[in-house]
Amino acid sequence: MAELSADSGVPVATIKYYLREGLLPAGRRIGPNQAEYTPEHVKRLRLVCALREIGGLSLAEVADVLAALDAGRAARVVLGVAQDGRVTVRPVPAPARAWALGRVAELLGEPADDTGPAVANLVTVLAVCHGLGHDGISGRLAEYAALAREVAAVDAALIDDIGPARRPAETALITTLLGERLFAELRHLALVDVLTAASAEA
Amino acid sequence: MAELSADSGVPVATIKYYLREGLLPAGRRIGPNQAEYTPEHVKRLRLVCALREIGGLSLAEVADVLAALDAGRAARVVLGVAQDGRVTVRPVPAPARAWALGRVAELLGEPADDTGPAVANLVTVLAVCHGLGHDGISGRLAEYAALAREVAAVDAALIDDIGPARRPAETALITTLLGERLFAELRHLALVDVLTAASAEA
Repeated sequence: MAELSADSGVPVATIKYYLREGLLPAGRRIGPNQAEYTPEHVKRLRLVCALREIGGLSLAEVADVLAALDAGRAARVVLGVAQDGRVTVRPVPAPARAWALGRVAELLGEPADDTGPAVANLVTVLAVCHGLGHDGISGRLAEYAALAREVAAVDAALIDDIGPARRPAETALITTLLGERLFAELRHLALVDVLTAASAEA
Repeated sequence: MAELSADSGVPVATIKYYLREGLLPAGRRIGPNQAEYTPEHVKRLRLVCALREIGGLSLAEVADVLAALDAGRAARVVLGVAQDGRVTVRPVPAPARAWALGRVAELLGEPADDTGPAVANLVTVLAVCHGLGHDGISGRLAEYAALAREVAAVDAALIDDIGPARRPAETALITTLLGERLFAELRHLALVDVLTAASAEA
């Protein structure tokens, strides 16, 4: 276990906790106080850390996602599990919520029945922006959606590249959760460039 | 305070905590046990909740961001503060880190000196993907960066729309942090559409 900790950079106490919580399968027992861990254990541990520290999932959410992965569920099912609980849904005032539902319905071209977590999260984000008096973002919703489709096409190509035999669900998960962070950082860098250029002109 | 709680949906105990931590300015005292809160207080409270629950910032991070906003710092400075600490930087193995630095240097067309938080976060995300054996994402880095520039152009137009008189830094912050969630949900919906269509064909 000391070696597993050294290989992954995760403290022994955390590894023990993950083992107890079932996030990491037990090693093969090779002595009264020794167990053998394989490279698969190191990889699993890295995945747990990545989902938590970069994906921002709670331990319970990581457990749900890993269970779906291990059960061999389809990529889109695993993604749905990961998307659940991405937004803490504090009760949003009813008028703001109704307004946001209207915007999402316009965008998706069908009555938003507020089912899947992604649609619910979208409605919450727009309702919160509305409550903050920042409606500009919803006025640009169609533009953002069109660009999101282009990004998703790159994601899909990436998942396709590895072929169905090699864990497409895991690739989809990493593409989505780590890719979300990656894209946000790229967007941040690009926006700061634009703002800096604008202030240099002013 | 009961009214402030009702208007915002935030429990009284949480409001008291925010007051103690200085995230929310004190109300105007109008009696020994009463204070008056304005619509500005309600808005501030909503902003704190949005940054925490949708932006995923910790309380300490929210405090830093609000301090930068209140000090009238430029939008790009406020964004830099918000971007700090978005990725928990666990020590990444040196070879993976060097590899990721190389990819980022290729992309940014200059030696990545690993300064600003966004560049550091980018390097960490790529290094973690590399450690997980998922290098596909870095192979698509230039495509993602090109689309991120288009998204940032929409963000910049949105910030521009409101004009310099009306809190551009706050708009930039909401556009970035809430917009990150918004865009991720749109991307998720688009990707699930593609994956569902692909599995229907198969």
